[in-house]
Amino acid sequence: MGGDAAPNMVVDGAALARERHPNIQFLLFGDETEIAPLLARHRALRDVVEVRHTDIQVKSTDRPSIALRQGRQSSMRLAINAVVDGEAGGVVSAGNTGALMAMSKFALKTMNGIDRPAICSCLPTLRGESVMLDLGANVECDQDNLVQFAIMGAAFARTILGLPRPTVGLLNVGEEEMKGNEAVKGAAAVLNQADLPLRFHGFIEGTDIAKGTTDVIVTDGFTGNVALKTMEGTANLFSQFLRTAFRQSTLSRLGYLLAKPSMKALRDRIDPRHHNGGVLLGLNGVSVKSHGGMDDVGFATAIGLAVDMVADDLVGRITADMAHFTDSDKKPDETQDRAVAR
Amino acid sequence: MGGDAAPNMVVDGAALARERHPNIQFLLFGDETEIAPLLARHRALRDVVEVRHTDIQVKSTDRPSIALRQGRQSSMRLAINAVVDGEAGGVVSAGNTGALMAMSKFALKTMNGIDRPAICSCLPTLRGESVMLDLGANVECDQDNLVQFAIMGAAFARTILGLPRPTVGLLNVGEEEMKGNEAVKGAAAVLNQADLPLRFHGFIEGTDIAKGTTDVIVTDGFTGNVALKTMEGTANLFSQFLRTAFRQSTLSRLGYLLAKPSMKALRDRIDPRHHNGGVLLGLNGVSVKSHGGMDDVGFATAIGLAVDMVADDLVGRITADMAHFTDSDKKPDETQDRAVAR
Repeated sequence: MGGDAAPNMVVDGAALARERHPNIQFLLFGDETEIAPLLARHRALRDVVEVRHTDIQVKSTDRPSIALRQGRQSSMRLAINAVVDGEAGGVVSAGNTGALMAMSKFALKTMNGIDRPAICSCLPTLRGESVMLDLGANVECDQDNLVQFAIMGAAFARTILGLPRPTVGLLNVGEEEMKGNEAVKGAAAVLNQADLPLRFHGFIEGTDIAKGTTDVIVTDGFTGNVALKTMEGTANLFSQFLRTAFRQSTLSRLGYLLAKPSMKALRDRIDPRHHNGGVLLGLNGVSVKSHGGMDDVGFATAIGLAVDMVADDLVGRITADMAHFTDSDKKPDETQDRAVAR
Repeated sequence: MGGDAAPNMVVDGAALARERHPNIQFLLFGDETEIAPLLARHRALRDVVEVRHTDIQVKSTDRPSIALRQGRQSSMRLAINAVVDGEAGGVVSAGNTGALMAMSKFALKTMNGIDRPAICSCLPTLRGESVMLDLGANVECDQDNLVQFAIMGAAFARTILGLPRPTVGLLNVGEEEMKGNEAVKGAAAVLNQADLPLRFHGFIEGTDIAKGTTDVIVTDGFTGNVALKTMEGTANLFSQFLRTAFRQSTLSRLGYLLAKPSMKALRDRIDPRHHNGGVLLGLNGVSVKSHGGMDDVGFATAIGLAVDMVADDLVGRITADMAHFTDSDKKPDETQDRAVAR
C-alpha cells in the first residue's frame, strides 16, 4: 500500500517482475478490495499471488517509532513478518522509509558481527553500475562500521553486479593516506590488511562516484545521503538546462527532433527506475525499499533486487564473510593494532 | 607560478581581469625571465604590473608543512606577505591548495571570533548561483564552526551575489528538525535564534544544492568536499553520455549541428571557469585559490572574486557580523542554552 501510485504500481510491477523471473510468487499485503480488481487485469499473476488482507497502513508521515508501536497489523509489518516466518524470501515496499527500516530491524534483527545495518543502492556510472552504502541509515559511523559496510557492499556487488572480486573504495576528501577523519583512516588501515573477497582500492573522491572508479563506494550515512541526493540534483539541473537549450531556437528544436531517439537512449541510461531499490544490508533477511515515486517499471527493478539477493543467499554470504573476517581479525597482527588505536 | 598553464594563464588572466576592473594593479611573483616576455604581449598591463622576481616555487606535490617551513622565499609566500604588509589587497594563486591554505593561515592569521577558516566557492544552480562552504578545510566540524561558516558565507553572498539578506541552509540528511548529527542540530538551534544579516532557511538536502534552494549552503568540510566533487563528477558523466548520444546516429549528429549554438549556451552555463575561485574565509585578508587546471578566463574569474572582496571590505563585514553575533550571544537566552547543551 506504500508509494504514490500504490497499489496499482505494486501489482503491475509484480506482473513485470514475474515476466523477468518466472519462478517468483507473491504475497501481497493490503486492502483486498483495492487489490483484487487490479489483479484481475493480470492473468499471469492469477496462480502465483496470494492477497493477505489488512485495513491498516503505515502512513508516509508516521514517525518510525509510532509505526513500530502502533503498526503491528499494518500491511508493511505483516509483509516483514512473512520474511521472519520463512513464508517469504524477502520484502519489498515503497512505503515510509524510516518505518520500513525500524520494523525490518526490529523484526528481522541485525546479523551477528554487524553493529549497524546500512542502506545500499546501485548507481549509474561511466563504467556501468556501482553500489554505494551507507545512504542514510547511520549519520555517524566509526571505523568498524565502515569496515562492515565494505564487507556487506562487496557481497552485494558480487550478487547484484556478478563480480567475483569487486573493488571497494572509501569515500574521502583526497586520495592521499594522511587525508580524512579518524574513521576513514582507521577503516583503510584495516581493509588494506584484511583477507576478504574484495580488492580494496583505497580512498576515492566525490568525482570517482560517477566515474565508477570502484564497484563499491563505502561512506558514512551522512555523506552518502548527501552525495546521492547531490547526484540526483545535479542530474536534474543538467536535464533542465538541456531542455532549455533545445527550446532556445527553431533550429535547436529541429535538432532535438532529429536527435530524439538518441536523447531517449540517454534518458534510459540515467533513468532512476533502472536503478531503483535501497537495500537494508546487515539484517537476517532481505528487505528492499522502493522509491515512493516509482511506477511499475521501477518497482519491478526493486523486486528484481530482492529476487537476486534471495537466489544468491546474500545474507549467508555476508554471514560467511563476516565470520571469516572476525576469525582472521583475531590473529595477532601489528598493523591491525595500529589501525584500531586512535 | 602555480597551475598547469602558469605563468601564461596568470598573465593573460590578469589582462582579462584588468579589462573588467579597470582600476586594479598587479604584483606578479615568480620567475621574471618567464614572465617578462608574456607581459610584453599585453600593452594594457605595462603600467599596472610590477614583477617581483623569485626562483623558488612551491611544487604541487609539496606537503603543506614542508612548504610552510622551506618556502619562505617562494612566489606563493611572497605574494601572501604582500597582503600582510598592505602592499596588495588580496592574493590569487592557482598553486598547491594545501600550501596556500597553510601559508595564508600562518601569515594572515585567523580572524577574532573565528575558530577555523573555511573554503567557500560559487556554484551554478537552477536559480543562478549559490555559495557553499566548507569545501574541505576542516574534515570535522562542531556546531560553533557551522554557525561561523553561516555568518561568513552570508557575508560572502552579500558581497559576491549582491544580496542584502541571503538565505542560508544547513546541509543535512533530511529537512525535519530531529534529523542529523549533533553539530547540525545544535547549529540550527543557534541560527534559528540569532540576530544576523541573513535568513536562516533551516535544513536542506543534497538535491537542494543544484536547485539553488538557498543562497548559502553550509556544511562541514568533509561533506562539502564530497558534495562538490560529486556534482563535478555527475556533470562530467552527463556530458559524456550526451556526447555519446549525439554520436549515436547520422540523424543525431545532424541534430547536434543544428542545436550547436544552444549546446554552447548550455556548456557556458555550467562552465567551471565562470565559477572558479575557492576563497579562504575567516582570515585577516583576502586569499583566493584558483583551480590548477584553469585557463586565463578561469583565472580572471578568481581575480574578480578577490577584487570584489577587497572593494566591499568583506573581511570588515565578517568582523562586524561576528562582533554583533558574539555580543547578542552573551545575553542570557534559554534557547541558546539548550542549543549548546549536547
